[in-house]
Amino acid sequence: MHLNRREFSWLAGASLMSQALPKLNAQKDSGRIGYCIVGLGRISMDHFMPAVKQTSQSRITALVSGHPDKARKQAALYGVPESSIYTYENYDEIRNNKEIDAVYIALPNSMHAEYTIRAARAGKHVLCEKPMCTSIADAHAMIDACKQANVKQLIAYRCQYEPTNLRAIELIRQGKIGTVQAIESANGFNIRAGEWRLNKKMAGGGPLLDVGIYSLNAFRYLTGEEPVEVKAYSTTIDHDGRFDQVEENTSWTMKFPSGIIASSNTSYGSNMNGFYRVHGSKGVIAVESAFGYQGQHLTAQLGDKTSLDEPNPAKDPSHFIRMADYFSNCIQKNQEPKTNGEEGLRDMEWISRIYESCGMTL
Amino acid sequence: MHLNRREFSWLAGASLMSQALPKLNAQKDSGRIGYCIVGLGRISMDHFMPAVKQTSQSRITALVSGHPDKARKQAALYGVPESSIYTYENYDEIRNNKEIDAVYIALPNSMHAEYTIRAARAGKHVLCEKPMCTSIADAHAMIDACKQANVKQLIAYRCQYEPTNLRAIELIRQGKIGTVQAIESANGFNIRAGEWRLNKKMAGGGPLLDVGIYSLNAFRYLTGEEPVEVKAYSTTIDHDGRFDQVEENTSWTMKFPSGIIASSNTSYGSNMNGFYRVHGSKGVIAVESAFGYQGQHLTAQLGDKTSLDEPNPAKDPSHFIRMADYFSNCIQKNQEPKTNGEEGLRDMEWISRIYESCGMTL
Repeated sequence: MHLNRREFSWLAGASLMSQALPKLNAQKDSGRIGYCIVGLGRISMDHFMPAVKQTSQSRITALVSGHPDKARKQAALYGVPESSIYTYENYDEIRNNKEIDAVYIALPNSMHAEYTIRAARAGKHVLCEKPMCTSIADAHAMIDACKQANVKQLIAYRCQYEPTNLRAIELIRQGKIGTVQAIESANGFNIRAGEWRLNKKMAGGGPLLDVGIYSLNAFRYLTGEEPVEVKAYSTTIDHDGRFDQVEENTSWTMKFPSGIIASSNTSYGSNMNGFYRVHGSKGVIAVESAFGYQGQHLTAQLGDKTSLDEPNPAKDPSHFIRMADYFSNCIQKNQEPKTNGEEGLRDMEWISRIYESCGMTL
Repeated sequence: MHLNRREFSWLAGASLMSQALPKLNAQKDSGRIGYCIVGLGRISMDHFMPAVKQTSQSRITALVSGHPDKARKQAALYGVPESSIYTYENYDEIRNNKEIDAVYIALPNSMHAEYTIRAARAGKHVLCEKPMCTSIADAHAMIDACKQANVKQLIAYRCQYEPTNLRAIELIRQGKIGTVQAIESANGFNIRAGEWRLNKKMAGGGPLLDVGIYSLNAFRYLTGEEPVEVKAYSTTIDHDGRFDQVEENTSWTMKFPSGIIASSNTSYGSNMNGFYRVHGSKGVIAVESAFGYQGQHLTAQLGDKTSLDEPNPAKDPSHFIRMADYFSNCIQKNQEPKTNGEEGLRDMEWISRIYESCGMTL
């Protein structure tokens, strides 16, 4: 059987993607979930905020920034009143703003825990960028704070709301490549000196936390299993000052309960254009640009006769849109999000075990 | 700089490939190296022997087989006289056949050592299929026997004579992708029940010895370094009787002296169409169908401006031709082959260490 694009859309619409796609009927602003953007960096300004504009159930109602000029400019773009611009000092006052239902935290990794916990204590739901935080203890504290405050928590694992990745999961679950045996992956980029990601205290670690986490999370959502064991190496090749605090490269191999093996590399020394390749007894699924903001491209061989070639539209922002509305929908319907704090915690635990295998600590 | 196919050919001809390419002037049969084919399986009959017909310095002068009918049929195809057909019992008599300069050993792995050593004692040079053998002790014994008899030994690492793999090596050595950081690879196929490869005594182990060895060898020739450490897992998923003696899957990660990390999967449970991807500080080289008999396809991004897309002709048998004539040339000129016994031994040592990391023994 060859699945064309329309059949795929139908299948996807009928099952997995229906979880991610909110109802498309337009709603009044008052019915939408109001987000307070915490941190005005590239991912907020270039990706999340423009995407929210295209959602049906989400809107931007407040900002937190240490830069008043930048904040005012962004506020104007999104119709946020001056009174809803906060600083890191008066952040806790979001508690009194009824227009804020949830926060979107896009700060350096080491700040995720504090700003999640403060949001929870202010009674706000929390959408937090990955990695969830920089220690297992912080992950537990974040989960506990959200539970105690009865607010929902979503870790921004975009790829679990992205159509091509969902398509890969669906093909695997449908048995289209038979029994999964092995997966390879890589993700990385050539980092510029001076980035906060190279500061161990702010980042918590090297490329594994920042970009290798995509491969790790993919291994878990592609297999639908939790790993049982991991072995790894970390190295630094370039002694040019960038890697005085964090490692440059990490490579690991994992074993899953069914016997699936998975190996991956991650690097701050090379532009890897993240990919994965899933090998089954009856076929193979490969996704190029698997983890990027756009340009996902799935190819597959399913049995002897069916091959797929499914590039995604070059500038499809849908996974940000889907993720925001998915969380809004969870809040509206009081449903537990699939990429909740526990999902983030599991990755933190495996990141910790990978570092341990390298003779390092998270 | 964009290198087109002609420039590549020139570069390749000027350096690496000149080692593999023999002089193209036709020679009389008497000037060619005469090979005795030991074992008439698929690789001999479908690949090596037809390729030798296209060489300029090699010819088939004798056969060893346990099947007289098959032997006579093949002998007729290649102009081999009946008197030069041997059995495994009278194999040592090749010593008295002046038309035999070298043997090509394409037997089950566990027989490589014995038939190499007997050939050496008969004063014949030895071209032996990979894996070299099934134990480190055997590898040493083979090397010693060849040294003692003053005959040359070549392990049939085809890919080190194959243009696309040589092209990848050359691009890396020329610094076209900057500093190599990480490599991913996989190789495997979905094995049929009943193959001798599933018999531990004959095969020595699972897919790692048979097909994973291509990734291992590639890591070494791509980096130009010897690994320093390895960690691995082996698993068996399919309990359908095929894997009662050898494992189904193996995954490993390796560290090299410069800091390069390399990870790979190998499987007898999935058709993997072997590939590798080399990530450098300035670019990436990917080779699909990297280890097959044909169809190698290199793509690369070299810096920001140069991208390469170099598929190989679909039915290019040149690496068998090149390998045979390369060895013939080494014999004629009394030069040490690059993929000699020591090269094979190194892979055997790393295979042993991979198994050790899996809690198994070679």
